[in-house]
Amino acid sequence: MTISIIGVGLLGGSFALAVREKYPKVKFIGVDASIVHGELALAKGLVDEMLPLEDAVPVSTLVVLATPVNTIMDLLPRVLDLLPTGATVIDLGSTKGLICDIADQHPKRAQFVPVHPMAGTENSGPGAAFKELLPGKNLIICDREKSYPDSVKLVEALFRDIGMKIFYMTPKEHDLHLAYVSHLSHISAFALGLTVLEKEKDEKAIFDMASTGFSSTVRLAKSSPQMWAPIFDQNRTNVSQALADYIEFLQRFKEVIDQQDISTSLDFMNRANIIRRVLDGIERK
Amino acid sequence: MTISIIGVGLLGGSFALAVREKYPKVKFIGVDASIVHGELALAKGLVDEMLPLEDAVPVSTLVVLATPVNTIMDLLPRVLDLLPTGATVIDLGSTKGLICDIADQHPKRAQFVPVHPMAGTENSGPGAAFKELLPGKNLIICDREKSYPDSVKLVEALFRDIGMKIFYMTPKEHDLHLAYVSHLSHISAFALGLTVLEKEKDEKAIFDMASTGFSSTVRLAKSSPQMWAPIFDQNRTNVSQALADYIEFLQRFKEVIDQQDISTSLDFMNRANIIRRVLDGIERK
Repeated sequence: MTISIIGVGLLGGSFALAVREKYPKVKFIGVDASIVHGELALAKGLVDEMLPLEDAVPVSTLVVLATPVNTIMDLLPRVLDLLPTGATVIDLGSTKGLICDIADQHPKRAQFVPVHPMAGTENSGPGAAFKELLPGKNLIICDREKSYPDSVKLVEALFRDIGMKIFYMTPKEHDLHLAYVSHLSHISAFALGLTVLEKEKDEKAIFDMASTGFSSTVRLAKSSPQMWAPIFDQNRTNVSQALADYIEFLQRFKEVIDQQDISTSLDFMNRANIIRRVLDGIERK
Repeated sequence: MTISIIGVGLLGGSFALAVREKYPKVKFIGVDASIVHGELALAKGLVDEMLPLEDAVPVSTLVVLATPVNTIMDLLPRVLDLLPTGATVIDLGSTKGLICDIADQHPKRAQFVPVHPMAGTENSGPGAAFKELLPGKNLIICDREKSYPDSVKLVEALFRDIGMKIFYMTPKEHDLHLAYVSHLSHISAFALGLTVLEKEKDEKAIFDMASTGFSSTVRLAKSSPQMWAPIFDQNRTNVSQALADYIEFLQRFKEVIDQQDISTSLDFMNRANIIRRVLDGIERK
């Protein structure tokens, strides 16, 4: 079996490392616009060779699109055009609506399986890839019924075997939920980072006074702008609504503090505390 | 030497554990409004005995006020009234302005040293105390010149010896900086938790789709409302301004997303990425 990874970064590279461990005979081909990424991916053993897309896709059993989501939209029709009969292409993008719309217009739609692994870190590139990123996490497969059953079986077998739990939903459900549980938390972290950096012109003051609590809350502000700008754009209707909801809670919190309404302040925080039940589960994953 | 810990929770208990390791002959007395906390503190070895405040303070070399900040304000004058000559009282509160104002009105002001250890977790109570919480972190001492030099020396010696780095500033500077690097990140996490819980009535959906990134950003939403409500209240002018700044950034981010202005979106995130330099330092602490 030959698997091509288009975009040998954190996610594509981590997928390759996890699959390699379970399927040592699979040949991995890397495709990347960056020569340096290609060199790193080869040096780290993420892939066995680097090839141009046009040479990699026709010899692949499985093609994995692991680039930023705007590039996935550009590349998916080209990959489907080049894809041999019986082969499968998946994307690992954090948005699913527009990508599935593009796929739906292609005559080879059934060879495509849109997936999204619920995993990531604030780091990017092949240097950030590690084989433990995906095992134990969840994978969402969208529009399963639009793909060939054999393509779905291949994808399920690989992801289950590297230790992922699989969920199914529509692209619309996916994008709505993700706006709240992932995209919003990235924007809240980026904005927190900006607010603090703007106020504290002296970075040393932040460093001296911030605790690990601040560090945890703002961690995602380190994430890749090139990856996130197209995600926010593709999912802008949902993200905009999530942001509006979030801003409204912040404004109400501000009013409560301004008015010294301690009992409502306590009530807000007691309600937010319920998140502990959810988080304790996530952290055990 | 006898040290009384008033409020045998996360911070008071962790301080006792760290000091005990370096100064095994110190006797620790606990004072707590909760009988259960007292039992836990004794069982865990945080303190040697539990006493009422009126009995503990007169026999203490050092009294540590480690309660929520509103209780610190209530207790500080009582503790100073009872404090023997030559003894010292410190508070570990996350706000310093109002607490120092109260102290300034007391005839025994010079026996008080206001400090704030830049450390904490989202957990509270004696069960959450651990001896590694404070070592390696920073301590802020406010208004050093208003305290007896010997009291300052005692405090510096203890905190330095448990591995903390000491900084000095005014209560006003402290409260302004903390609004941005600590209080704001707690509110942003509480509001994020509320927003997601409000939208996702089914907690399992959050659990299935959230990644460790969400978990990290929202972690502080697990924090104790009883501890944080009075902090936000005491520091409300600064916190309200920090929240206004944060909401403004979020609104600008929302407009940029609504208008599909990718280049400004990238610019915001690239600027936020600068936080990496600061965070990499904090995480190495």
